[in-house]
Amino acid sequence: MSSGNFHPVSGVDLPRFAGIATFMRLPHIGLDDPRLAEVEIGLIGVPWDGGTTNRPGPRHAPRQLRDYSSMVRFQNGATKVKPYDLARCADLGDVGINPADVQDSLSRITAFYDRVKAAGIMPLTAGGDHLSSLPILRSLARDKPLGMVHFDSHTDLFHSYFGGFKYTHGTPFRRAIEEGLLDPKRVCMIGIRGPAYDFEDRDFADSVGIRVIPIEEFHARGVADVMAEAREIAGSDETYVSYDIDFIDPAFAPGTGTPEIGGPNSFQALEVVRGLRGLNIVGADLVEVSPPFDMNGTTAFLGITVMFELLCVLAECRANKVQGA
Amino acid sequence: MSSGNFHPVSGVDLPRFAGIATFMRLPHIGLDDPRLAEVEIGLIGVPWDGGTTNRPGPRHAPRQLRDYSSMVRFQNGATKVKPYDLARCADLGDVGINPADVQDSLSRITAFYDRVKAAGIMPLTAGGDHLSSLPILRSLARDKPLGMVHFDSHTDLFHSYFGGFKYTHGTPFRRAIEEGLLDPKRVCMIGIRGPAYDFEDRDFADSVGIRVIPIEEFHARGVADVMAEAREIAGSDETYVSYDIDFIDPAFAPGTGTPEIGGPNSFQALEVVRGLRGLNIVGADLVEVSPPFDMNGTTAFLGITVMFELLCVLAECRANKVQGA
Amino acid sequence: MSSGNFHPVSGVDLPRFAGIATFMRLPHIGLDDPRLAEVEIGLIGVPWDGGTTNRPGPRHAPRQLRDYSSMVRFQNGATKVKPYDLARCADLGDVGINPADVQDSLSRITAFYDRVKAAGIMPLTAGGDHLSSLPILRSLARDKPLGMVHFDSHTDLFHSYFGGFKYTHGTPFRRAIEEGLLDPKRVCMIGIRGPAYDFEDRDFADSVGIRVIPIEEFHARGVADVMAEAREIAGSDETYVSYDIDFIDPAFAPGTGTPEIGGPNSFQALEVVRGLRGLNIVGADLVEVSPPFDMNGTTAFLGITVMFELLCVLAECRANKVQGA
Amino acid sequence: MSSGNFHPVSGVDLPRFAGIATFMRLPHIGLDDPRLAEVEIGLIGVPWDGGTTNRPGPRHAPRQLRDYSSMVRFQNGATKVKPYDLARCADLGDVGINPADVQDSLSRITAFYDRVKAAGIMPLTAGGDHLSSLPILRSLARDKPLGMVHFDSHTDLFHSYFGGFKYTHGTPFRRAIEEGLLDPKRVCMIGIRGPAYDFEDRDFADSVGIRVIPIEEFHARGVADVMAEAREIAGSDETYVSYDIDFIDPAFAPGTGTPEIGGPNSFQALEVVRGLRGLNIVGADLVEVSPPFDMNGTTAFLGITVMFELLCVLAECRANKVQGA
Amino acid sequence: MSSGNFHPVSGVDLPRFAGIATFMRLPHIGLDDPRLAEVEIGLIGVPWDGGTTNRPGPRHAPRQLRDYSSMVRFQNGATKVKPYDLARCADLGDVGINPADVQDSLSRITAFYDRVKAAGIMPLTAGGDHLSSLPILRSLARDKPLGMVHFDSHTDLFHSYFGGFKYTHGTPFRRAIEEGLLDPKRVCMIGIRGPAYDFEDRDFADSVGIRVIPIEEFHARGVADVMAEAREIAGSDETYVSYDIDFIDPAFAPGTGTPEIGGPNSFQALEVVRGLRGLNIVGADLVEVSPPFDMNGTTAFLGITVMFELLCVLAECRANKVQGA
Amino acid sequence: MSSGNFHPVSGVDLPRFAGIATFMRLPHIGLDDPRLAEVEIGLIGVPWDGGTTNRPGPRHAPRQLRDYSSMVRFQNGATKVKPYDLARCADLGDVGINPADVQDSLSRITAFYDRVKAAGIMPLTAGGDHLSSLPILRSLARDKPLGMVHFDSHTDLFHSYFGGFKYTHGTPFRRAIEEGLLDPKRVCMIGIRGPAYDFEDRDFADSVGIRVIPIEEFHARGVADVMAEAREIAGSDETYVSYDIDFIDPAFAPGTGTPEIGGPNSFQALEVVRGLRGLNIVGADLVEVSPPFDMNGTTAFLGITVMFELLCVLAECRANKVQGA
Repeated sequence: MSSGNFHPVSGVDLPRFAGIATFMRLPHIGLDDPRLAEVEIGLIGVPWDGGTTNRPGPRHAPRQLRDYSSMVRFQNGATKVKPYDLARCADLGDVGINPADVQDSLSRITAFYDRVKAAGIMPLTAGGDHLSSLPILRSLARDKPLGMVHFDSHTDLFHSYFGGFKYTHGTPFRRAIEEGLLDPKRVCMIGIRGPAYDFEDRDFADSVGIRVIPIEEFHARGVADVMAEAREIAGSDETYVSYDIDFIDPAFAPGTGTPEIGGPNSFQALEVVRGLRGLNIVGADLVEVSPPFDMNGTTAFLGITVMFELLCVLAECRANKVQGA
Repeated sequence: MSSGNFHPVSGVDLPRFAGIATFMRLPHIGLDDPRLAEVEIGLIGVPWDGGTTNRPGPRHAPRQLRDYSSMVRFQNGATKVKPYDLARCADLGDVGINPADVQDSLSRITAFYDRVKAAGIMPLTAGGDHLSSLPILRSLARDKPLGMVHFDSHTDLFHSYFGGFKYTHGTPFRRAIEEGLLDPKRVCMIGIRGPAYDFEDRDFADSVGIRVIPIEEFHARGVADVMAEAREIAGSDETYVSYDIDFIDPAFAPGTGTPEIGGPNSFQALEVVRGLRGLNIVGADLVEVSPPFDMNGTTAFLGITVMFELLCVLAECRANKVQGA
Repeated sequence: MSSGNFHPVSGVDLPRFAGIATFMRLPHIGLDDPRLAEVEIGLIGVPWDGGTTNRPGPRHAPRQLRDYSSMVRFQNGATKVKPYDLARCADLGDVGINPADVQDSLSRITAFYDRVKAAGIMPLTAGGDHLSSLPILRSLARDKPLGMVHFDSHTDLFHSYFGGFKYTHGTPFRRAIEEGLLDPKRVCMIGIRGPAYDFEDRDFADSVGIRVIPIEEFHARGVADVMAEAREIAGSDETYVSYDIDFIDPAFAPGTGTPEIGGPNSFQALEVVRGLRGLNIVGADLVEVSPPFDMNGTTAFLGITVMFELLCVLAECRANKVQGA
Repeated sequence: MSSGNFHPVSGVDLPRFAGIATFMRLPHIGLDDPRLAEVEIGLIGVPWDGGTTNRPGPRHAPRQLRDYSSMVRFQNGATKVKPYDLARCADLGDVGINPADVQDSLSRITAFYDRVKAAGIMPLTAGGDHLSSLPILRSLARDKPLGMVHFDSHTDLFHSYFGGFKYTHGTPFRRAIEEGLLDPKRVCMIGIRGPAYDFEDRDFADSVGIRVIPIEEFHARGVADVMAEAREIAGSDETYVSYDIDFIDPAFAPGTGTPEIGGPNSFQALEVVRGLRGLNIVGADLVEVSPPFDMNGTTAFLGITVMFELLCVLAECRANKVQGA
Repeated sequence: MSSGNFHPVSGVDLPRFAGIATFMRLPHIGLDDPRLAEVEIGLIGVPWDGGTTNRPGPRHAPRQLRDYSSMVRFQNGATKVKPYDLARCADLGDVGINPADVQDSLSRITAFYDRVKAAGIMPLTAGGDHLSSLPILRSLARDKPLGMVHFDSHTDLFHSYFGGFKYTHGTPFRRAIEEGLLDPKRVCMIGIRGPAYDFEDRDFADSVGIRVIPIEEFHARGVADVMAEAREIAGSDETYVSYDIDFIDPAFAPGTGTPEIGGPNSFQALEVVRGLRGLNIVGADLVEVSPPFDMNGTTAFLGITVMFELLCVLAECRANKVQGA
Repeated sequence: MSSGNFHPVSGVDLPRFAGIATFMRLPHIGLDDPRLAEVEIGLIGVPWDGGTTNRPGPRHAPRQLRDYSSMVRFQNGATKVKPYDLARCADLGDVGINPADVQDSLSRITAFYDRVKAAGIMPLTAGGDHLSSLPILRSLARDKPLGMVHFDSHTDLFHSYFGGFKYTHGTPFRRAIEEGLLDPKRVCMIGIRGPAYDFEDRDFADSVGIRVIPIEEFHARGVADVMAEAREIAGSDETYVSYDIDFIDPAFAPGTGTPEIGGPNSFQALEVVRGLRGLNIVGADLVEVSPPFDMNGTTAFLGITVMFELLCVLAECRANKVQGA
């Protein structure tokens, strides 16, 4: 249960353009803050694009997402969920990454999430490029592999780039599988599309049992049917959700580094998250928002709305666990 | 019937980027112009955002909508309606509002529309924020309450903001109901969505009998079915149409102050207006276009195309009345 | 069959933002290059907007499309076609048009395509405004009229502008019919919409037997059904494909001079091209991209993705012919 | 002397963002309007870029300049001149050019200015690209050659482009000299700079006696000294003023097709116009503003402020002549 | 003296794009925070544009200025002042204004500053439009009138707008004089320029003894000379500094509502602040930054750099007073 | 001496917006091209921002600079130098860097320049962030330390970032001094300014004898005087020129990652390069252009104009050496 101290400021009291921008206008509670022990869901920024092979920018996403989060109110208009009544939420700030060293940054991110995990907090992350998900999984999945529902236009399952370089935003889930952080049989990737260099990633997915739902299948079957399958694949065990903004069509989300034509529209973008209700989710991320390529904040506003939908699902999970415990 | 004097300039004669920008390239006929008596439908700008609680800008909308109206030709490609053959249309100019005083502006707007009404002209308004609709209704509905079809992502039925402040763009229809300007049983609100502070507005709607169709229902039922219900609700009596550009998804209409994710696409945005045919419409508005947040005029062009569709419906109404009379 | 010399540079080897921008990162082979004889499909820019009656800019399209083509990889994710394995492709550079003289430019374009045709190369053109298609057809259809599948929001069948001026981007196919370059019975125009000055173009289409599928019909029937009819109309004889970017809704393709509200989405924009498979295509163009009105390259990226889909279809045709021969 | 009918609307009465945009918020008086006979100075748009060899856009300048002219008030803050008290000014609308035919457009422009001249009106023109100046001079200088003060980064004295094509925005004053419209001994060109293809234009200038003041000399001598020389060159006879916005440095005026680095700043841009006081000016133009390349209207606002300074100088000339007569 | 708790986060430790954005990366200390008693200089946002008569937007300035303040480091490169070593500085957050009621907002602002003043904190304000200065002065000058150095392109001394409306961003200092908040003999206004409706403001200035230095005089005399006079006018008594971003030329500061051509460049914009050293300053503001009109943050970054220069001057004053006390 | 094969395409022959974009429209000659042996000056792109600690983007600079280089003609308008008549120039393409590994990229850059040096070609580089200069110097200064004239707002002499990380764009010249690549007594840094974390860099400069000219001194003394000193410091021995675009004021060059207010204007930006004439220059770079932060290409156009000025100086050096040899 949430208390007043963990409730966003209302735009009816203070205009939405006013005040210091935290995620969802929640209180900022750093890792050293004594109130940390009370937090149940932590919104965390990973201002990093060290794994980006194409157009940069996600290092700027956490700040822009915070700014646009002032536009998001408290209660889910579709599901009626009131996340701040279900769980104590806070903005835990940004991970202090090193923009000029990939391995150092990976370590710093994992260390941050280790502390979050130790505090019993469910993390909802604003990336960062998709390589950010790897060090998060290294923390969350340390004990046993997780299932994953992954919304994206790319599998991010490639082996390497630029002559064997293994850590880019095109490789995190290949590494995660190799490192035993994900149970491939419980992984479902939705929305995959676009011209490819080759299908080495898809062959790998097939070989380990990852279910890939390409966009043509998504459009043919519809959200409800696809998400029913996704829930079945993930099952009742612990599951991570990774949401790449380039899952959505570039007309709705132009501000990203490697867009692909022909994706879902914005209504579907929210519906798929609602389709996660009932899963046993332990954390989620929204990655690859790139403000420098995002004129008038369209992408940031869509991204933070997706994060709000994720937060509603996480809050239900949290409340259920607390109640169940 | 229209005469040549009330016909737009053709882009085949004069390029569309040329000339002084009036609405639809129609003649500008001010309220003191002797030709006013001939006008049947008046396009009016309300360059005002005094009721805006979030991002400003609609004060600039009438001018930008006039600019983009040069791109709109004469005949409806879908319905084949030729509005300028059905009614004498003119640009009546902008209401001279006071940007620094809300109550003074409300009075000035009502006074302007009183003159328009006295001249027997049907008004088609380019707002302005949504508070603009209130002073217009005070003029149009002075004698008896109107029905209303309302396209929006918000109900604009809230009681007050900022500690009891009652006049903002989130409250016009609460006031209109209180003032007896609308018959709530004949009001239908379509497209409502987005996270909410609370559901005080929805409770009010329920208590007075306003029909609210949320976006999930809209997407599930489709335009034809929804609009059939809307026509039934409005009935055959006099009806106003209020169209907030944020009804449409922000990918199609980013230039607005309070966008909400997951709305209709642009084809649906036009289709709903065509679904108004047959109603007894006495006036209409298109509000909340905010040019400062509208890169490359996407929103303005969509907005003025919606206005053209509204104009086609108004012209049919007018012609029917004239013929019926 | 393609050789390594005609293969794009891979972004896994060289980052996609690096290197001199040619179409699809293919080798640049000018008309005087000895390797020209080996080329089977030539990508050609026509940097021209001399026929534009409204907002200018397509003169800048070939360069911007080349820039964004770095984002497109090698294999079609949906159809699995590998165009560079099927045909030897190259960037043939731009036609050297004269921006200040329409007739001189028309002659220069035809002369360029005559050389391309003489070399036995199938042209895939990046316009340019839609008047570009006329001089291309004058070369390709010199011997006998072609069929055409035409994606657009306008028919471009008007007689003249500005008091009898016959050569604008609104008239190319009227001229092409008059000059015997197209067989009207084998022409299908898809996506037509928007307010019109009059329906003189549509009357002409009817009178010569061109099939026009307006957008309302397109949305009602769906891509598969419409494209089946289009294939039937074009038949098995030689066919040209002309794709105006304003076929697509302006939310997806804002960067164009004369947008029209209510068009297909980006997924449909690709699907219609896939629906051309099996036709006997001799050339194709993508026209009316206008970079000055295209914030953040959204339109260019969609445009070059459409060109890649067109290239896949052309490559299949080419491979079939070579195999058949 | 001006009457109230020819006075701009005040922003203290009606907000500056309101109302239909005419030049300086002056009344719109078309060539067929009976009030034309009263007008002393006419502001005219030439929405044309048919002579542009590089980036297009000036066809959109008159409309954008009208929009920004709402920001300009009535009295010159520096010189204290009140132009609307000195002369009756009006917006005469735009010339109806033909965007797809250069020669036709040249004829239409000259015909328009012939009517303006016949009405005894001094024209202040908002171009259009610089080729616009040629047809204006053909009207104004029909009887005898004029002197000219020309602010620009280019001489626009080239012979031809693209293999002998003689009518582009790089050639108007070569043609004007050839046609006897300008007296080269009374022509002064200020601000010339930038890398050149060759110096054929400069050799021509030298051969006919045109004085060219390059930017290095301008910066070294300062505005006062340069303008003293310019006034001496133009002398007391009738003089035209042509002001290309690319005279000014691109940081101040980015919205133009062929910018050149290293020009005057905005204060100097105004000061040079004030340095024209005392000359016998018969007309002036401000050309080459290109809205599609002008983010946030910076260039348009600077351009219209330059036009206001030109208007102040023209109004003084007019008042002096009337007084002198 | 400052302690570590009041020092900004360093970009060498945490990248500048990371973390929650507060002014200068200082700690956020609200008015109810127990640490308030330790603060010596408070940075405060007034997110308000209720007095704006032209283009809106300053309500968004505090947030954007906070964002760009991450780019500003700790020590003044020119004067070598280290403000955070001289005084304990903090971000006090934003005043909770009412965007839809001018008088209510004026009261709220004054109430906020009364608390700041009561805590013995020197305020450095990020406006807000220029009307913001009035309620601040009502607090700071409650006991006796202040001197003022005012950088602006407008005097903001007008009597009223829109038929007698007295509270707009064009009137604050007329009101302040009337209310006895400023000693007109100790007020100096620098940079005044631009076309005017009339000179009623200037006549008022003359009548009460305010010294107005127009831009022509500023450019002729140079910064050092002008600032020497300004210091003499303000004298040794308590003085306020009000800096309107439109003092600076629009090429450097396009993001403002009422720009005027021909202002100082960015180096002069900083130099004038350094020219305030030695004055007895009790507070300062930077107003009229309008993010919606500020592409790529140019204006915000210049604005926050001006604020840093103001902070350096305030910190010296504070340290001197503490030392002197 | 140059031959026709190494001459840019003229915009009088082919419009400037046409054709594949190479630097200055020169031929593209890769390192494996047999014509490499003929090249005297090579224009090279380093599409890299791996050392960027703040806002990213320079990886995109080479492509955008090539695009804008079409706007630059052949002959220097100020100095009358014709670089393509003095030396055979070519576009050597981009270095194939690894965006996700700093050390690997450093090696790849040095290897590329080793081949250029071995071919006897003077390199003119388009970065890339400023760390790019280090691997270039490792090649050019392998045999003996070079002098350097360095235009910048930062010294780039810092020791390390983020807890000891030594390779960022803030450290290249510290490393270059440590590695013996630069002779500090022959190094002059011009334009240094902005708030600082500390003055560790300046202390280092003093300790090794680097001459730093801060912006205040630059503005006070003027270009001619400063450049005379710079030439004296560099002397007659071999010298490198490094030009960071953030040397120039952000109003002129907004598109860069770490701008600093108060820099030189664009005319001074060119003049300082002309002040290098007579030096014995062996290579030059222009770095830190960041296209994602560069609306309408203002910065790219200024950057490529600076590169043209550098090219003119390099061509004179080359011609002198050839002549001298």
